[in-house]
Amino acid sequence: MKRLRNKIKMGLAANLNIKEFMLMPASPIDELAINTIRFLAVDAVEKAKSGHPGMPMGAAAVAYVLWDRFLKHNPADPEWPDRDRFVLSAGHASAMLYALLHLTGYDLSLEELKQFRQWQSRTPGHIEYGLTPGVEVTTGPLGQGFACAVGIAMAERWFASRYNTPDCEIIDHHTYVLASDGDMEEGVVGEAASLAGTLRLEKMVCFYDDNGVSIEGSTDIAFTEDVGARFRGYGWNVIGPVDGLDIAALEKATRKAKTQKGRPSLIICQTTIGYGSPNKQGTAAAHGEPLGEEEVHACKKCLGWPYPEPFTIPDEVRAHFAGARARGERAQRDWLAKLAEYRGKYPDKAAELERELGGELPPGWDEGLENVFSPGEKPLATREASGKVLNAIAPKIPALIGGSADLAPSTKTAINGAGDFSASNYAGRNLHFGVREHAMGCVASGLALGGAIPYTGTFLIFYDYMRPPVRLAAMMGIRVIYVFTHDSIGLGEDGPTHQPIEQLMGLRLVPNLVTLRPADATETAEAWRIAIERRNGPTALVLSRQKLPVLDRAALAPANGTSQGGYILWEASHQPQVILIATGSEVHIALEAGRLLKEENGVAGRVISLPSWELFDAQPEDYREKVLPSGITARVAMEAGTAHGWERYTGGNGAIIGLDHFGMSAPGPVLYERFGFTARRMAGKALEQLKRR
Amino acid sequence: MKRLRNKIKMGLAANLNIKEFMLMPASPIDELAINTIRFLAVDAVEKAKSGHPGMPMGAAAVAYVLWDRFLKHNPADPEWPDRDRFVLSAGHASAMLYALLHLTGYDLSLEELKQFRQWQSRTPGHIEYGLTPGVEVTTGPLGQGFACAVGIAMAERWFASRYNTPDCEIIDHHTYVLASDGDMEEGVVGEAASLAGTLRLEKMVCFYDDNGVSIEGSTDIAFTEDVGARFRGYGWNVIGPVDGLDIAALEKATRKAKTQKGRPSLIICQTTIGYGSPNKQGTAAAHGEPLGEEEVHACKKCLGWPYPEPFTIPDEVRAHFAGARARGERAQRDWLAKLAEYRGKYPDKAAELERELGGELPPGWDEGLENVFSPGEKPLATREASGKVLNAIAPKIPALIGGSADLAPSTKTAINGAGDFSASNYAGRNLHFGVREHAMGCVASGLALGGAIPYTGTFLIFYDYMRPPVRLAAMMGIRVIYVFTHDSIGLGEDGPTHQPIEQLMGLRLVPNLVTLRPADATETAEAWRIAIERRNGPTALVLSRQKLPVLDRAALAPANGTSQGGYILWEASHQPQVILIATGSEVHIALEAGRLLKEENGVAGRVISLPSWELFDAQPEDYREKVLPSGITARVAMEAGTAHGWERYTGGNGAIIGLDHFGMSAPGPVLYERFGFTARRMAGKALEQLKRR
Repeated sequence: MKRLRNKIKMGLAANLNIKEFMLMPASPIDELAINTIRFLAVDAVEKAKSGHPGMPMGAAAVAYVLWDRFLKHNPADPEWPDRDRFVLSAGHASAMLYALLHLTGYDLSLEELKQFRQWQSRTPGHIEYGLTPGVEVTTGPLGQGFACAVGIAMAERWFASRYNTPDCEIIDHHTYVLASDGDMEEGVVGEAASLAGTLRLEKMVCFYDDNGVSIEGSTDIAFTEDVGARFRGYGWNVIGPVDGLDIAALEKATRKAKTQKGRPSLIICQTTIGYGSPNKQGTAAAHGEPLGEEEVHACKKCLGWPYPEPFTIPDEVRAHFAGARARGERAQRDWLAKLAEYRGKYPDKAAELERELGGELPPGWDEGLENVFSPGEKPLATREASGKVLNAIAPKIPALIGGSADLAPSTKTAINGAGDFSASNYAGRNLHFGVREHAMGCVASGLALGGAIPYTGTFLIFYDYMRPPVRLAAMMGIRVIYVFTHDSIGLGEDGPTHQPIEQLMGLRLVPNLVTLRPADATETAEAWRIAIERRNGPTALVLSRQKLPVLDRAALAPANGTSQGGYILWEASHQPQVILIATGSEVHIALEAGRLLKEENGVAGRVISLPSWELFDAQPEDYREKVLPSGITARVAMEAGTAHGWERYTGGNGAIIGLDHFGMSAPGPVLYERFGFTARRMAGKALEQLKRR
Repeated sequence: MKRLRNKIKMGLAANLNIKEFMLMPASPIDELAINTIRFLAVDAVEKAKSGHPGMPMGAAAVAYVLWDRFLKHNPADPEWPDRDRFVLSAGHASAMLYALLHLTGYDLSLEELKQFRQWQSRTPGHIEYGLTPGVEVTTGPLGQGFACAVGIAMAERWFASRYNTPDCEIIDHHTYVLASDGDMEEGVVGEAASLAGTLRLEKMVCFYDDNGVSIEGSTDIAFTEDVGARFRGYGWNVIGPVDGLDIAALEKATRKAKTQKGRPSLIICQTTIGYGSPNKQGTAAAHGEPLGEEEVHACKKCLGWPYPEPFTIPDEVRAHFAGARARGERAQRDWLAKLAEYRGKYPDKAAELERELGGELPPGWDEGLENVFSPGEKPLATREASGKVLNAIAPKIPALIGGSADLAPSTKTAINGAGDFSASNYAGRNLHFGVREHAMGCVASGLALGGAIPYTGTFLIFYDYMRPPVRLAAMMGIRVIYVFTHDSIGLGEDGPTHQPIEQLMGLRLVPNLVTLRPADATETAEAWRIAIERRNGPTALVLSRQKLPVLDRAALAPANGTSQGGYILWEASHQPQVILIATGSEVHIALEAGRLLKEENGVAGRVISLPSWELFDAQPEDYREKVLPSGITARVAMEAGTAHGWERYTGGNGAIIGLDHFGMSAPGPVLYERFGFTARRMAGKALEQLKRR
């Protein structure tokens, strides 16, 4: 096999008799089924004039063995909680998955396959969760699927540990991943694999489609490592290399992996990209573009496919795959019977489990939330406030689990007394991600997809390490809560490498992400409420390292204005002359500026706390107009981050106090003073504004 | 050692006699020197009331052995091109490096050490390139230093390969890295290590400070992998574990690593975090905060340090380190003699080498650049135009080297005929990064620090994978060119996972990064000119996948307006009624809208091409006022990305056509139409603007 692949690499593909490969021929129906998958994918790409035929052709047998012989799923109910998960980390092989979904009876018509990559089809270029039934994770950007699958496997262990009883394993499923060379090259896979090894996630199995080719050519030019040795180093059970065409060997390897105890498994499958295409197989040319009509023809001939008509599904293949749906329905029925028994014996547990899997919150989960902080509370950082809120609500929401990328003591993200999630205690709720922000983001998505309400914790600057999963969570519309602390130059001495400038605004640019930067402890409690209740997308909480006063809500507006994104916190008069806008720690400076203006200059100011742009922008126009009347154009905004974008609220003539350069290493208060984040400067800018008119 | 560390982990630290550790005692002067490093760091942290004492205390001996016995450097000339590089990837151990720099005679006074982490000191919390002499790379965010060092080591091999002659090795130095557990957990280290293994960078040596402790406690909670096995998998020579206190063993290991052929080396050094602190060593408490006065006292007693006064440097230690400067001056003198000989024998090569190491461009490097595209040029994507420009200038700028994260055929970033940089040909100029965007960004920084003019290539969406190194390059003020193609929904069928929405604006938010999104081939040539000539910071080129017309510069303004960031491309009249602003591919739509307004509505429009916000904002006010007169408030901006931030140019009343949701999988033209990026819509918005007045 290896030898043959080398021959192909050496450009001899065209002279090879493809049958040479079939060292261990599959049974006729298997072979026909595998070719059906291949050609559905090839035809879809051809029709779209766009897409990736190479991996479907090379990895079809691998996917087929898993789907035909092992995968526990019910195509009639893609939401069945105890199904096995199949995560196609190589999202570009989408057409292969669509073929499998169609063939095994998911609600995905052949017509949809014909609409591959077209406007409003359910068969987009890279697979999308929520759009296509049976797609478990949105993938495409490499590495994301694999790392997300680690989170899914963790969720399985968590639910199993919490809800299974000695007489009833109500949660018991596997997480399978199909990953490519490109996935293996991405660092996030290393991070997640190391974590999976540490956590001994024995029910995770990854098929590595080792085809030795990537876009620039042979992987040898950039990737000569021994992947198996690396994964063994992570603590994985490594199986293979297995010939990716050898059904029996694949079956044996999968069985071995499935029953492996104490370690996740990697099955290295040696395959040939574009298998069956006489002129392109084994080369990068087969990867990411249609084969072309002529080559498709040659390919069909080569693989002995007798149907010239595209999108043909032989009757015997249809009949063969019908078994999938029957098996799935039976399996789910058995499980439902088990669940009924479980409900009878453990009604409370069952109710809780079902509520959690349904994404519902326990009734009264937020009782007393408004009283976590008393009016006379001493100043505290919003990160500390966040820690208190988390610990106030965590006992009421069991599925709220999370942790930090090795910064828990700083991010205040530990749940007291809830135990550590570890190989010896999967029921623990405190996760230790290690210094792996990227994997943390992906794992959090996996946990959410698995039914938990996950939160992460790191410094805001390290959002830069986890942008890809935050974006995908927003795209998937799943509930993940990102706690980002140390949110500005206020963190002080750690210096510019740790001081966010563009990160806060960067969060606001991501569609369907809600970002909240609360001004004090009470707004922090409200921010958590919003994050927990938000079911259709992720939320970022942006919190201070430094202590901040707890605003006196008797004298100021109540903190529940947070839910509107922005609100009038204080005003000297209902007819203010100037509007001061700020978020987070700068709200206190704005309040002081308002006081100065009133007392020293007799100028009436209004202070807007604007914790969330997204929520504010979503308010009805009359509310926004009430808060920011268009007639009052004298406006000053202050935020200890980039000034960029604040024109939205200051208008063309307003002033913005922000930072358009990197920070410095010095105590936080020194930086605030030196960089001009002072009440006096803000008041001065306001007076300038008024003078200009 | 291991056993002892375990005892420490078990909380027995306080009961240990620290002397137990000194299994193989260092010579008195070594021990005194190491303790001097430790206590300079401890005292600096203590005085600043902020910082990281743990790693300096634990790893001082490791660093000392390297600096005292091996490092080829001249403290009197930190810029000596053939010095060995020392990259402290664990940037939080800054105080240790400052101690070494001071002791070995760099221009860094003891007074500066006393100003650790203070306003405008040269001793910031995390080390900063360009600020402190002898600091090779800005680090702090973990993993960055290690991955950057791979680039530095690659630059060494490239220059050596290109300029060394059989009789004269003018370039011949090592790249040493000191990395922590946290570095090893970051995925980017895995990416870069795999690449270094593939490239057989034998002159790279990494000391791994394996102290088994990170912020949340023992690394066992998240990191049980076998790092040595993993690195062997990458193709590294793994040495150790070595006792991090055993001078002789460290010396032997370093010697072995330094002479290793064909493989980079990892020396695993087992150390104790906070070594010498009786109550904190071996625990996370020693990591990131001052020990406290009492503990410092106990620590000094424990290690037999007789000087109660902070910042004490014993005379014999001063005398001992004086040798470093003497050795360094001698070494550089020898090298200069060699260079003189080289100049004599190879004057052309020498001139080129010196020019490159000085960061200068060859005279006439851009001759003919304006003629790469002829007036009648057929439509071509700006990525294709970029490839042509690259290939036009590459022959004239030998130090221009780069490549892509496995997307060269798509990003058009290959230099024809320039060979691949590989283990068998370090003189090649085409780099193959593999699917490792994050490491690519870091490696590019390392290449720039090593004297090359590097460029990278990937899709704009994957900027998300490489944000940390782009930010650090901007902070370091180094010349790196990022080619980002497939810059909008215009990429079409690959769908929302690949369609940037927030990335373009995200680039603009990074301080000291210049972003250019050219509208056509001619602007693309200008953009490359700007990027190449920019010496004090990185540049991002944002390019289309889809074909775009080449603007008729006879009828429109010349493309050199690009250098001003924005310019009047076309106007119906010198007194326009409405201004249409666009970048990149949308400029063509704006032109068409201008035409529609004129021909169908008799409205005089002006079209502004705004390829670079940073460059435009840096123009004198009168120029900006000329382009965007404040009196003309009817404005429409269009960009196929987030609308967020465009208020800067449209003002409070203008209209913005952008995208504040994710894209979709469909052909690009369909998306442009469906999402409203049409000339008719833009013209319509302009008319609305005029009506409102």
